[in-house]
Amino acid sequence: MRYFDVLILGGGPAGLTAGLYAGRALLKTAVIERGVWGGQMATTEDIENYPGFPNGGVTGPGLSELMRQQTAEFGTELIIDEIEEVKAVDEGFAAKGYDDTYVGRALIIATGASPRQLGAKGEDDFRGRGVSYCATCDGPFYKDKEIVIVGGGDSAVDEALYMTRFAKAITIIHRRDELRAEKIMQERAFKEPKIKFLWSHVVEEIKGNGEVRAVQVRNLKTGQASDFPTQGVFVYVGMNPNTGLVQELVKLNAGGYVCTERDGSTSRAGVFAAGDVDNVRLRQVTNSVGMGAVAATSAIRYLEELDFARAEAVQRSK
Amino acid sequence: MRYFDVLILGGGPAGLTAGLYAGRALLKTAVIERGVWGGQMATTEDIENYPGFPNGGVTGPGLSELMRQQTAEFGTELIIDEIEEVKAVDEGFAAKGYDDTYVGRALIIATGASPRQLGAKGEDDFRGRGVSYCATCDGPFYKDKEIVIVGGGDSAVDEALYMTRFAKAITIIHRRDELRAEKIMQERAFKEPKIKFLWSHVVEEIKGNGEVRAVQVRNLKTGQASDFPTQGVFVYVGMNPNTGLVQELVKLNAGGYVCTERDGSTSRAGVFAAGDVDNVRLRQVTNSVGMGAVAATSAIRYLEELDFARAEAVQRSK
Repeated sequence: MRYFDVLILGGGPAGLTAGLYAGRALLKTAVIERGVWGGQMATTEDIENYPGFPNGGVTGPGLSELMRQQTAEFGTELIIDEIEEVKAVDEGFAAKGYDDTYVGRALIIATGASPRQLGAKGEDDFRGRGVSYCATCDGPFYKDKEIVIVGGGDSAVDEALYMTRFAKAITIIHRRDELRAEKIMQERAFKEPKIKFLWSHVVEEIKGNGEVRAVQVRNLKTGQASDFPTQGVFVYVGMNPNTGLVQELVKLNAGGYVCTERDGSTSRAGVFAAGDVDNVRLRQVTNSVGMGAVAATSAIRYLEELDFARAEAVQRSK
Repeated sequence: MRYFDVLILGGGPAGLTAGLYAGRALLKTAVIERGVWGGQMATTEDIENYPGFPNGGVTGPGLSELMRQQTAEFGTELIIDEIEEVKAVDEGFAAKGYDDTYVGRALIIATGASPRQLGAKGEDDFRGRGVSYCATCDGPFYKDKEIVIVGGGDSAVDEALYMTRFAKAITIIHRRDELRAEKIMQERAFKEPKIKFLWSHVVEEIKGNGEVRAVQVRNLKTGQASDFPTQGVFVYVGMNPNTGLVQELVKLNAGGYVCTERDGSTSRAGVFAAGDVDNVRLRQVTNSVGMGAVAATSAIRYLEELDFARAEAVQRSK
């Protein structure tokens, strides 16, 4: 068992920033990451919209390493472990990992969300090099290009409309023969001359040679496969918030994201959330660091109040 | 008259980030700053808690210049002008400046807030070098030092308690003989052994030689002046949100800050706010950039909806 003041689950920009703020406030702090420091940020080729990095921006792995290093400099422990269970205990909140069990007097959930993958052949190989899950992040890299967007929900249509700013032509490929998006959004998409539709098709493979050249699609009605030429693939088939571990601990919304107040507090005292796991619309590094700072500040305040209340109780019992 | 899609008032981290996001979305965007790019950030000596800058952080002017340059790279116009009046017009919102009048279809208020100064002699000279207006920003630079905090409201007491993490001894200097802070906070301060009080005194001068050595205080009851030795001065005598120009345009709270929703929207459609001018508790660069990105994203969405509604209206009138 290892004890901390602030235990942070998830080592993406939100978790690392929360770790920076809590460590800098001289609290005994740990950030626990199961995979790679930086989270989704680390899998991003180029980030040109995180403020402070002009001249083409910074690479995702580069920014991840800068943030990791800075957080470590403030004494925060950075631990790689796979957490299997999180629960409330007398001392606060316990996260049982593979290597050890970690207990925090306050807990910050920054476990992120993962875009659902298509499961198409080549998808991993071209990720960040022609396959994207975020138009706000990568849109400008596709100026005057022909792209496809896979999906039929609100996000798919929303991002298709956004991509009309950059792309020359957009084809929405959807497995059904109608969209699931809000009617008003559908209407806007149907009236947009740059947006075309390929109904009742699924993407089976992403093909290219260094860069994306085509997607292999299959017509679900005829069963026929064919190649559809394209220069980029934006995937919007849903997001999975990583909240399986905390679903008993805090209130989640219908989509499975953690419900928070503006100060990062959740339905349970002492538990805070930040970053993509939170029910926010904008999933950007720029926004996640802000939320990490806010959640840490709230956790710091919570612990100050807790300490005072305990000191008072000790005083009274004397 | 110059016309823009998005007009941003204020060139601190929130305004520059909003400009980056709106410009990157290929909207015709201007950021108007009256003084120095970076705002309060530019007057800060060292920033060690903005994620992405390890090894001691980055200077305030340095980070300001990086952000300014990056925003300019996305085609956003950066204009120095002093705005005298802001009002709603047919085309959107007009800001009348000294050099020109700027009209934006959407408006983002990022004019910041200024900490009230003591007006003590030497205060400007030692700003960022022994005089601070932000414990979260500068606290760790005062580890094991003796400091004074000037003020008696919630912020003064809150930050005094926060500074007990770092400083060896803290004296709250207050012009009255009692605090204005919440009772519970007062109680905590009175019980904290590191915090002492100097009642009914004002600070008239900050003295030192390269670094702060003492404050000259005056006892308001006896009229007597004396030197009080200290290594740092934290000033909490209030904040002035820079909302004079927009008080007729959007709803402000009792403190004069702009009331916003989590997406940065205000009481008026098409007007958004971000950064310290917003009614947020945490006033940090880390948080301001996040709010700037959120407000810009909301403005982009607002303009998309506006364009579609107008196209529909034209269609119907044919």
